Amino acid sequence: MTEMLPPGSTIGILGGGQLGRMLSVAAARLGLKTVIFEPGGDCPASHVANYHLQAEYTDKDALRRFADSVDVITYEFENIPTSALDILESLKPIRPGREALRISQDRLTEKEFLTSLGLSVAPYADIPDAAALEAALGTIGTPSILKTRRFGYDGKGQARLMSPADAPAALVAMNGTPAVLEGFVDFTAEVSIIAARGLDGSVSCYDPGENVHREGILRTTTVPASLSAALRTDAVLLAAKVLNALDYVGVMGVELFVTPGGLIVNEIAPRVHNSGHWTQNGCVVDQFEQHVRAVAGWPLGDGSRYADVVMENLIGEDVERVAGLAGERGVAVHLYGKGEVKAGRKMGHVNKVG
Amino acid sequence: MTEMLPPGSTIGILGGGQLGRMLSVAAARLGLKTVIFEPGGDCPASHVANYHLQAEYTDKDALRRFADSVDVITYEFENIPTSALDILESLKPIRPGREALRISQDRLTEKEFLTSLGLSVAPYADIPDAAALEAALGTIGTPSILKTRRFGYDGKGQARLMSPADAPAALVAMNGTPAVLEGFVDFTAEVSIIAARGLDGSVSCYDPGENVHREGILRTTTVPASLSAALRTDAVLLAAKVLNALDYVGVMGVELFVTPGGLIVNEIAPRVHNSGHWTQNGCVVDQFEQHVRAVAGWPLGDGSRYADVVMENLIGEDVERVAGLAGERGVAVHLYGKGEVKAGRKMGHVNKVG
Repeated sequence: MTEMLPPGSTIGILGGGQLGRMLSVAAARLGLKTVIFEPGGDCPASHVANYHLQAEYTDKDALRRFADSVDVITYEFENIPTSALDILESLKPIRPGREALRISQDRLTEKEFLTSLGLSVAPYADIPDAAALEAALGTIGTPSILKTRRFGYDGKGQARLMSPADAPAALVAMNGTPAVLEGFVDFTAEVSIIAARGLDGSVSCYDPGENVHREGILRTTTVPASLSAALRTDAVLLAAKVLNALDYVGVMGVELFVTPGGLIVNEIAPRVHNSGHWTQNGCVVDQFEQHVRAVAGWPLGDGSRYADVVMENLIGEDVERVAGLAGERGVAVHLYGKGEVKAGRKMGHVNKVG
Repeated sequence: MTEMLPPGSTIGILGGGQLGRMLSVAAARLGLKTVIFEPGGDCPASHVANYHLQAEYTDKDALRRFADSVDVITYEFENIPTSALDILESLKPIRPGREALRISQDRLTEKEFLTSLGLSVAPYADIPDAAALEAALGTIGTPSILKTRRFGYDGKGQARLMSPADAPAALVAMNGTPAVLEGFVDFTAEVSIIAARGLDGSVSCYDPGENVHREGILRTTTVPASLSAALRTDAVLLAAKVLNALDYVGVMGVELFVTPGGLIVNEIAPRVHNSGHWTQNGCVVDQFEQHVRAVAGWPLGDGSRYADVVMENLIGEDVERVAGLAGERGVAVHLYGKGEVKAGRKMGHVNKVG
């Protein structure tokens, strides 16, 4: 029997964006309170959380106050400074744990970890400098993608190489930081699997969703994915393998490429994931509540899928379509409370059911 | 084209209990902000609202500040003092409107209104005094129920008369306030219909649910209700009639008795209703979001039912069963963030799906 935080307990969430917002709502549904740690003011999560502690990740006093005010700590993004984690970890449990963060914060470490589990990843090479890039282009070739090892998201910190002549510009785009070169994968589809592991070690996976990206940003996720039964099982097994290897607690997003040779892991995210938003209108217990349940030591909930769903992100001016979308049959609207519309900014999403 | 409050607008909610809490969450989902007006501290809605204005309903300055801070005003309970409504109404739209409140605040007025629409209600009589009660017992007889005309809920302010000898005690229970005597209705089932009307006059009704009360408090609502197709249609038509007659904007709960002679209206509640909580896990758009959409001038959403649901209230110590319930297949847990467990207090509910 694992310790289950009783209703009225408080979950601390690092990061106050839309994922923190939807985690807060899920926590409230279970009678749990939330405190958001987020440097920005008027952040999406602050609108629905019990308390918003507005401070920088370098503010040690604030971090200690945050830890003192909560029973367990989780996060909505993986790029949390190590110095902050060191302080927090000494005061309260952090779930998912440090190992998951250490691995997912660095693309090279992540690929080495996945490879060590026997999972397939794209061909890759460590690129500390120009010489390494030249050598790697000899083996991996082009087209390929140079990516910063750390702090990349939504296509940021990436440069595409269509020929070796693109190498100098790609290196400039890395801005002097360590990088990794990834070989091109000829995939037929991108899918992701949202998997959860409870404090008691139980694992529950959502049905895989099929993703469409544009300009490095997720546009739609469709369930069910066009995936054979065998590959569906492969996806579940590999996700469970990753979670078990990390003694993971919480929800993880695992992005996969579907190829004629099987599934290739693109990346893992130790948190709720944009490609799991469909679960809000396709399952009794969605990914946000599942994550909260896991980190609070509750039993995992029923994540079986009861409907076909297409999740569509509302990016930038897409949000102006909301009046029309809201009146459509089977459409659930989810907006994030962001005041300013900017190009490329995720303003909300809709789930189109049935 | 009606005016639709854009995302970022603010809805003021009078009352900070669990209904206000779930309304706040629904508003947040649509990118709308909420301000709660509630005299009590640490109220359930305050945990998820943007702001909690803690003040008494007699505090005119606070009422004005509240109205100034919001774009539209709604409420989670019908017994709002008239003096407060007078101030608020002069400053911002109140939805649903005053007429719905005036009628539902007084059992006698409500029965006269429903009768004027040609709807059936239980036999009733105005009971200003003991003489009136004696006369009414001659026509209505026993068993019957004496109820205060105003401020009753969850079985409070009611006295059952099994014989005319119970009259004196029943009058004492009324504590000198005006009352109404209701004749006993020999019903085969209690059902309720949750109906919504948009600012544009469109009406949308949820599938009727079948209710079981114990000690005057709702215990379970089951959908689908055991109701013939003809009675189902009757329920929808009568709810729509009530909404239209009031030029209503928002969600209303209509409680009905099913009798061999047809449907009898028990009472109407001009707000989201406990018997509509099943919609959270049975519909794409639940009653809370539907209410928010209506009062914000948005199009009504898709309230069609996609699953069978049994809603069970967690009352008092029932909440201690939550750990077990949370692990059951198809169970969605909804807790209200109330600190203290008291007998008869609604602590949360579960929706059992499928």
